[in-house]
Amino acid sequence: MSDVMAATGLEKGGIYRHFSSKEELAAEAFDYAWKSAFETRIHDLEQVPNSIEKLKRFIVNFINGRPAVPGGCPVLNTAIEADDGNLLLRERVRAAWREWRDYLAEIVAAGLKRKEIRPEVDAKQVATLIISSLEGALMIARLERNKEALLTAQSHLERYMDTEVQLPSRSR
Amino acid sequence: MSDVMAATGLEKGGIYRHFSSKEELAAEAFDYAWKSAFETRIHDLEQVPNSIEKLKRFIVNFINGRPAVPGGCPVLNTAIEADDGNLLLRERVRAAWREWRDYLAEIVAAGLKRKEIRPEVDAKQVATLIISSLEGALMIARLERNKEALLTAQSHLERYMDTEVQLPSRSR
Repeated sequence: MSDVMAATGLEKGGIYRHFSSKEELAAEAFDYAWKSAFETRIHDLEQVPNSIEKLKRFIVNFINGRPAVPGGCPVLNTAIEADDGNLLLRERVRAAWREWRDYLAEIVAAGLKRKEIRPEVDAKQVATLIISSLEGALMIARLERNKEALLTAQSHLERYMDTEVQLPSRSR
Repeated sequence: MSDVMAATGLEKGGIYRHFSSKEELAAEAFDYAWKSAFETRIHDLEQVPNSIEKLKRFIVNFINGRPAVPGGCPVLNTAIEADDGNLLLRERVRAAWREWRDYLAEIVAAGLKRKEIRPEVDAKQVATLIISSLEGALMIARLERNKEALLTAQSHLERYMDTEVQLPSRSR
């Protein structure tokens, strides 16, 4: 609460005039941070025509992107905390991760249609793997204060996409 | 603090007779939870002779194990929180993740010696990949309150170990 007062320059009463509870305030702050982080990660994806390259660009953006709200990934930062009681916040974090998964799954689905991706690939599973690998690696990167774990995840995911997700051009 | 008072049945003064600060108390509680979780994950690994099978058993234990201290993985639960200021706790969480990584890396190193694992494999990278994949998947599993993301990570890691880590028997 004192962080919010410092950031907004408002007194407690002024903040509660805008939000009905501390829970709602936390949920709104999460939504704002998430929107900003997500925008940073997808802002240039439209320019990349191929689905596999789009997924790789997403990973690069995740690792290098600096959203307007600093501090890593809002989903990672909030998921564990929200599990402890703020139901509204938990709902928002879950909605954010699902939005993220569905966004990546749609890239895979488009790649399936364009025969860039192997027909046996499950779009949601690929999306889930990418997200869970990046989030876990980000947790370690924060503990170590370096990007090594993220770069390990990146090269692993790139190889996985090249060998298991992409349809080899001879099969197209 | 009130959680600790409830769990121990001690008054605040009684707790502070044992710990010099709230920071130290949190660090000791983390160490206890971590030791218990780690024991659960490795308790039967000695019985598995092959290094690849050992890593796979570790993953099964991570997904199914119920440590004496409930609530998922102490490293995941504490890493983000500890980044916000408790330096002692942050040190302990980092030491725990490194102990975990080194433990898995030693299994890989033993497999390299016994020619069960491809000579080009980097032991620490394999360990980091397994840990980051599992931790990220656990975060999602907690948001969704089901194991789907963990099972996706498991089958991905098993395939990765079979195709990229294990030395094919014809090459031995």
